[in-house]
Amino acid sequence: MTAPIAGPEIERLIHLLARLPGLGPRSARRAALHLIRKRTELLGPLAEALQQAYNHLIPCQICGNIDTRDPCTICADAKRDPTLLVVVETVADLWALERAAALPARYHVLGGTLSPLDGVGPKDLNLQSLTERVAQGEIREVILAVNATVDGQTTAHYITDSLAAFPVKITRLAHGVPVGGELDYLDEGTLAAALRSRTNF
Amino acid sequence: MTAPIAGPEIERLIHLLARLPGLGPRSARRAALHLIRKRTELLGPLAEALQQAYNHLIPCQICGNIDTRDPCTICADAKRDPTLLVVVETVADLWALERAAALPARYHVLGGTLSPLDGVGPKDLNLQSLTERVAQGEIREVILAVNATVDGQTTAHYITDSLAAFPVKITRLAHGVPVGGELDYLDEGTLAAALRSRTNF
Repeated sequence: MTAPIAGPEIERLIHLLARLPGLGPRSARRAALHLIRKRTELLGPLAEALQQAYNHLIPCQICGNIDTRDPCTICADAKRDPTLLVVVETVADLWALERAAALPARYHVLGGTLSPLDGVGPKDLNLQSLTERVAQGEIREVILAVNATVDGQTTAHYITDSLAAFPVKITRLAHGVPVGGELDYLDEGTLAAALRSRTNF
Repeated sequence: MTAPIAGPEIERLIHLLARLPGLGPRSARRAALHLIRKRTELLGPLAEALQQAYNHLIPCQICGNIDTRDPCTICADAKRDPTLLVVVETVADLWALERAAALPARYHVLGGTLSPLDGVGPKDLNLQSLTERVAQGEIREVILAVNATVDGQTTAHYITDSLAAFPVKITRLAHGVPVGGELDYLDEGTLAAALRSRTNF
């Protein structure tokens, strides 16, 4: 008794929904049912929104961000400080930093990290365009917001070297105790970094 | 600093994804990012699958199930026993019973339960078509798989009355201890029902 219980279109929809992060086979089934029940309010609009996104997604020529316009919403935002440039690995990191809403900066999305073992060299990342942006002279500070991994740090060092000729300040994110974190659960490296970078209270 | 970080198409997509059960605002954002990254492998196919479902969803004229064909996949399945009819409230209940895969039966989806307080009367449900199906004479047993709620039981009694004139056996789902359940956490009503319906071991 493994007969299909619905048409192939619905089975296919469930199968595709299950590939979204946060949805498994069971919750994809529940989501599909919800969509079936809300045909006009949700299924139709969602189908259209996905099609719109599919049709209009384009990488930003300036920063490498992916958006539905080029230049992207962030590069086109005149209210952002043009002297501050935050270098991130992926669009996900850009979104994460924007959620923090701490700095009205521009971004540069590398599209990954240098990883000799995986065959990712400087030419595979948006590094050339980064140097060109900095060479234009408007940028005063480059904030390296790459992951605190070996590959991320390798990339950070590479960028520091390649920007050495320009009069820009190069900074990185602070290491330390996560806000709300408990010392007992933190690794020694983080605790040591937090102690070294202690600030006045 | 609540400036948009992406075009309105993407913000709209996130907003709609967040309305799926199991996805909140945060996980919808993650799902949207995943879709953006997998533009051709997932975003495109999912947009198309949703559009297909939207275009082809249709209620089955026979049983009230919603599918992309009419008669639905289950009604059209010749391998199912035409003498067994399971009456359910919603398509969700039908899918749940099919997951159990215990009985190769046909279904009848009422579309809800009788609920005088909410103004839901017999004419608002698929009850007329149920009587007509039974009147055709092929069905031997009607299994009432409605929820064990007041409204569900009211509906069950109504159906029993309206089918009294036909030579069909009317049964309901067993009450008892859920498989894997612990007695300590069960309510008295369920335990009493389980004791009354005890079977040989």
